[in-house]
Amino acid sequence: MNKSDKNTAPVSASPLLDTLTGAPGELTCFSYDQLNALCAEIRAFLVDSVSRTGGHLASNLGIVEISVALQLEFDHFRDRILYDVGHQSYVHKLLTGRREGFSALRQYGGMAGFPRPWESPADPVVAGHASAAISAASGIARARTLLHDDYHVVAIVGDGALSGGMALEALNDIGRSDEPVIVVLNDNAKSISDSVGAIADYLTRIRTRPSYYRFKTFVQRAVGERFGGFLRRLKNRVKTLLLPASIVEALGFSYLGPVDGHDIRRIRELLAFAKLLNKPVVIHCVTVKGRGCAYAERDPGRFHGAAAFDSGSGREVKTRQTCFSDVFGETLTQLARKDARICAITAAMPSGTGLTQFSREFPTRFFDVGIAEQHAVTMSAGLAKAGMLPVCAVYSTFLQRAYDQIIHDVAIEGLHVVFGVDRAGLVGEDGETHQGVFDVQYLTGIPGLTLYAPASCAELRTVLRRALCDCTGPVALRYPKGTDGIYQDNHPEDVYILRDSFPDGAAETHGTVKTVSHGGSVSGTRCAGSSTEVISHGDSVTLLSYGGMINEVLGAADVLTREGIPVRVVKLLTLKPLPDVTPYLRGALVIVEDVVPCGSVGEAVLSRLAIAGMPIRTRHLHTGDGFVPCGSVAKLREVLGIDAAGIAKAARELLGR
Amino acid sequence: MNKSDKNTAPVSASPLLDTLTGAPGELTCFSYDQLNALCAEIRAFLVDSVSRTGGHLASNLGIVEISVALQLEFDHFRDRILYDVGHQSYVHKLLTGRREGFSALRQYGGMAGFPRPWESPADPVVAGHASAAISAASGIARARTLLHDDYHVVAIVGDGALSGGMALEALNDIGRSDEPVIVVLNDNAKSISDSVGAIADYLTRIRTRPSYYRFKTFVQRAVGERFGGFLRRLKNRVKTLLLPASIVEALGFSYLGPVDGHDIRRIRELLAFAKLLNKPVVIHCVTVKGRGCAYAERDPGRFHGAAAFDSGSGREVKTRQTCFSDVFGETLTQLARKDARICAITAAMPSGTGLTQFSREFPTRFFDVGIAEQHAVTMSAGLAKAGMLPVCAVYSTFLQRAYDQIIHDVAIEGLHVVFGVDRAGLVGEDGETHQGVFDVQYLTGIPGLTLYAPASCAELRTVLRRALCDCTGPVALRYPKGTDGIYQDNHPEDVYILRDSFPDGAAETHGTVKTVSHGGSVSGTRCAGSSTEVISHGDSVTLLSYGGMINEVLGAADVLTREGIPVRVVKLLTLKPLPDVTPYLRGALVIVEDVVPCGSVGEAVLSRLAIAGMPIRTRHLHTGDGFVPCGSVAKLREVLGIDAAGIAKAARELLGR
Repeated sequence: MNKSDKNTAPVSASPLLDTLTGAPGELTCFSYDQLNALCAEIRAFLVDSVSRTGGHLASNLGIVEISVALQLEFDHFRDRILYDVGHQSYVHKLLTGRREGFSALRQYGGMAGFPRPWESPADPVVAGHASAAISAASGIARARTLLHDDYHVVAIVGDGALSGGMALEALNDIGRSDEPVIVVLNDNAKSISDSVGAIADYLTRIRTRPSYYRFKTFVQRAVGERFGGFLRRLKNRVKTLLLPASIVEALGFSYLGPVDGHDIRRIRELLAFAKLLNKPVVIHCVTVKGRGCAYAERDPGRFHGAAAFDSGSGREVKTRQTCFSDVFGETLTQLARKDARICAITAAMPSGTGLTQFSREFPTRFFDVGIAEQHAVTMSAGLAKAGMLPVCAVYSTFLQRAYDQIIHDVAIEGLHVVFGVDRAGLVGEDGETHQGVFDVQYLTGIPGLTLYAPASCAELRTVLRRALCDCTGPVALRYPKGTDGIYQDNHPEDVYILRDSFPDGAAETHGTVKTVSHGGSVSGTRCAGSSTEVISHGDSVTLLSYGGMINEVLGAADVLTREGIPVRVVKLLTLKPLPDVTPYLRGALVIVEDVVPCGSVGEAVLSRLAIAGMPIRTRHLHTGDGFVPCGSVAKLREVLGIDAAGIAKAARELLGR
Repeated sequence: MNKSDKNTAPVSASPLLDTLTGAPGELTCFSYDQLNALCAEIRAFLVDSVSRTGGHLASNLGIVEISVALQLEFDHFRDRILYDVGHQSYVHKLLTGRREGFSALRQYGGMAGFPRPWESPADPVVAGHASAAISAASGIARARTLLHDDYHVVAIVGDGALSGGMALEALNDIGRSDEPVIVVLNDNAKSISDSVGAIADYLTRIRTRPSYYRFKTFVQRAVGERFGGFLRRLKNRVKTLLLPASIVEALGFSYLGPVDGHDIRRIRELLAFAKLLNKPVVIHCVTVKGRGCAYAERDPGRFHGAAAFDSGSGREVKTRQTCFSDVFGETLTQLARKDARICAITAAMPSGTGLTQFSREFPTRFFDVGIAEQHAVTMSAGLAKAGMLPVCAVYSTFLQRAYDQIIHDVAIEGLHVVFGVDRAGLVGEDGETHQGVFDVQYLTGIPGLTLYAPASCAELRTVLRRALCDCTGPVALRYPKGTDGIYQDNHPEDVYILRDSFPDGAAETHGTVKTVSHGGSVSGTRCAGSSTEVISHGDSVTLLSYGGMINEVLGAADVLTREGIPVRVVKLLTLKPLPDVTPYLRGALVIVEDVVPCGSVGEAVLSRLAIAGMPIRTRHLHTGDGFVPCGSVAKLREVLGIDAAGIAKAARELLGR
């Protein structure tokens, strides 16, 4: 596929793709030339489609041939094909009758960007977090055998996911069991070199011969004598992959590969052979992330999960604004220049958490441990214990993986680890598996932990400095995806606002609550920051909120004020220890947050009002006791009734108006 | 050490041990004969001491020589010696000046049974959950290097802990880094044979030669030619260990061993050599769990964590009563006889969770995945997805490790996985790291999950049947350690009590609350079960509770009734979905639970009262916003004010009496 084909061809120019219905086996009548042409059509479709909707591009461009080969060898509605993480499942979705879904990919009510069983029987399990597929596959495979079924179970796993402990736990367990499971390793590391490719190719051809197992020792010796140098390089390459054949084999798996992951015929041969082996098998496919699209190959990181872009140039349609993650990384880098003890830890998210600059400036103080949140947190504890100031930046939803480590390795001893809890609250398009709606619940329950919810980039800057310089013990900062909204704190150095959020100053506890009451006009100056000024103290209804949700609250306050309802807005900065808000409340109370209700701030505040014997008319708005699907954050807030209109409505109802 | 020496020698008959003060290097003046004599004294001391207090015996008898060798080679107050899990740290405690502590081992205010940094600088980090030490060590080691310190960092890890994902994450990360860390693998698997020991011994002597690295290939070939058969057997043995040298080496570690873990001189040589290597090293020590004590060697499982026993015979002092875990396993086995879809999953706790009988009767439907809670949960999800009825039994505190998996892999799709959450609430002697005080918080926040808290073995029986046969979606049963108390439900088949706990019968919601009001005499018949009868409906104060805490509540009700205060007791069986308790409340309200306050049932109930605008005098009793140390459950309840006396006191205060 040349570039002009790829980027300018209309979607309708896909004669082969157009014939597909998603029926099992429909690709088997195609020649390999036709299949390769189909792959080009699929790539063109993906680039065109994802450029309009945004989504995961590079990983899907890299997996086209693997997905086609899987479609050739398996029945997607009978066999169980599990795509780990699942952002690499677009081609699978396309080949299983969901082409129409791409027009509303990741939108509310539209097709998810990850496997979802309720969307199609071709998606066996929910996927979104990495490293889970082999575990799920092992359970399905064992059930299959116990229930005397005979379908195949395949897990497609990226090389990155193999750093995740649960993938290794699963390999360790299922390899020992002799339960037939096929693990397809989609290895898209870019460090692979041509010479390794050649010997790999050679090994593959030998290994797929049915007689291989009988003559393995002989072959190994022969290969070793003839290709000592190549083998060493292969071994070194494979070492960086973490999963050398010897490990796989030691764990009880048969190892097939490495194979060129863009060679349908070869992959198919290995899949067929793996079925025959009837035991745990790993097929090692080497692929290129972003394959076939020049800008995605060049910068696969940017096109991992991309916003809408121009399909010709790859340029983003909207100019990217400074987001919370940027400010987090930038502030941390500034602080690290002054304090050599500050170090940063991430679990495979250096760019997403804004730490790229830090990693360049302080390579020895930067630790990317791979997809390994548990280790990231406990290693941070070790760093803190031995005198460093570790800052562990993880997305809210992924930090769930390290819940026990925060309790056991950090909080019990009260170690000073700062957690950058990025993507807190609703994250939008990634859907159920990624919404950061549990962090308030799981973090506030941990004794001795301080939890901040900065509402603006300026507040994040100040709070991060405080967390590192003034706090002791574990401190978590939860901040949302994206940029700040109506609420922008122009007083980042306003000590009064923040100092009081520290438990050492009991007398100053009141200050922990920042009263940003509101009665004037904000709508005309949404980004001007004037909303942080105290304009009036309404007494009909108090809107209590924190973090990014304050923007919706200020929007609601604006609406209600226009309607003549005097409103008071109270914004929390510290969620734990929770300050006493009672002195600030007037009239009815609406609490607004973007988390699940159990263990929320609202529940804690209301229970305290109950204990204080303070009767109040109140409504608690939250994300509900269910999982929140994909859609834009704005749309999801609207649906959940926690946008400005929903909050205003709740306030009106409460006041009987 | 012969048996009579070991079991009858008084503690004072330890001339060498008596000379020790815990000072670094004090063992270096001893000859190896003296050191071996010291080890015998240590064993005698441990058997005598643990037989009085209860505690972890077998693992500590197995690690004596390793701990002595570590004491010889390192400075415990300067170097960092991390004992993974930490129940294997008794000898370490003994050798670092804490001999006196053993008289109050694991008792309230006494010495902990696990490493606790606030107890001694010789304990670098908190340890209690397995597989964490390598992560913590890697953080400490990196900080050491960044801060230009030069102490050594050693992690002592059991072979079992290597099935834990976070240990593998840490090996994967630190091996790549070249950061000097010494991992001592305490391999006490019993399957090791003498022949393997011989070749292992041989290999060890070769490998510890400084010239080894230069001549490795040569040596390997030589060994391979001469001892082909031995090598194969060694390889097979090592395979079952999950950590063959090749894996360790592929991950960047140098591998030293296997070495006889009861040979101080050899271990010491390897430790010294590992220091010289100045890179990540694994030393593989083969030990015998329970070493030197006949009954502990014979049944190391029973003497892993033991109650007080007769030091001569090993027999338990108290007769063991049927506990919740027994009833859980027994009931599950009965149900599994009738339904072939029922299967059981445990993470290295087949005996602790009561599943021994199940594993014998249904070996193909029983899965012990090792210390791998994440994989256990997601594999259960896979089993459920493919038509089985999986029951995953994990201790409350260890299930924290799989919090994300419950959300992501089970709850989002609403898969029918039953969780046996054993050791919920206070567990007592194991202290901070093991108290099951978070499960209500982390489980109630998960949408779609049903959470039961049976208060008696009879209720557990009924609820388990319901969870498997009548429920859909994820169901968790939280039940305490030990046996049931005052409250014993004699009506396990009382459908009225339980049916209503299912969300499908909205009209029956009231029934979810079981009113076991109480005003008569119970104290005379503490185990008779009469407390479950409705004797009177007091209206001065309502005591609301659930699970094992109901026993304390009934005790308090008894006290208050005697004082003439009419009491009402309301017991919840279902914690999520939380029933409406308001129709059952009379007078003041005392809520009692054995969990942290944030996200607790009490907070949820009180917030609902606030929303309902129902003013009430209320007190919420819980375990507080701190970590609960070791001590008997009774003592801890007393200290926390959640025993019968504390509850009665709170009620009195609330009533102003």
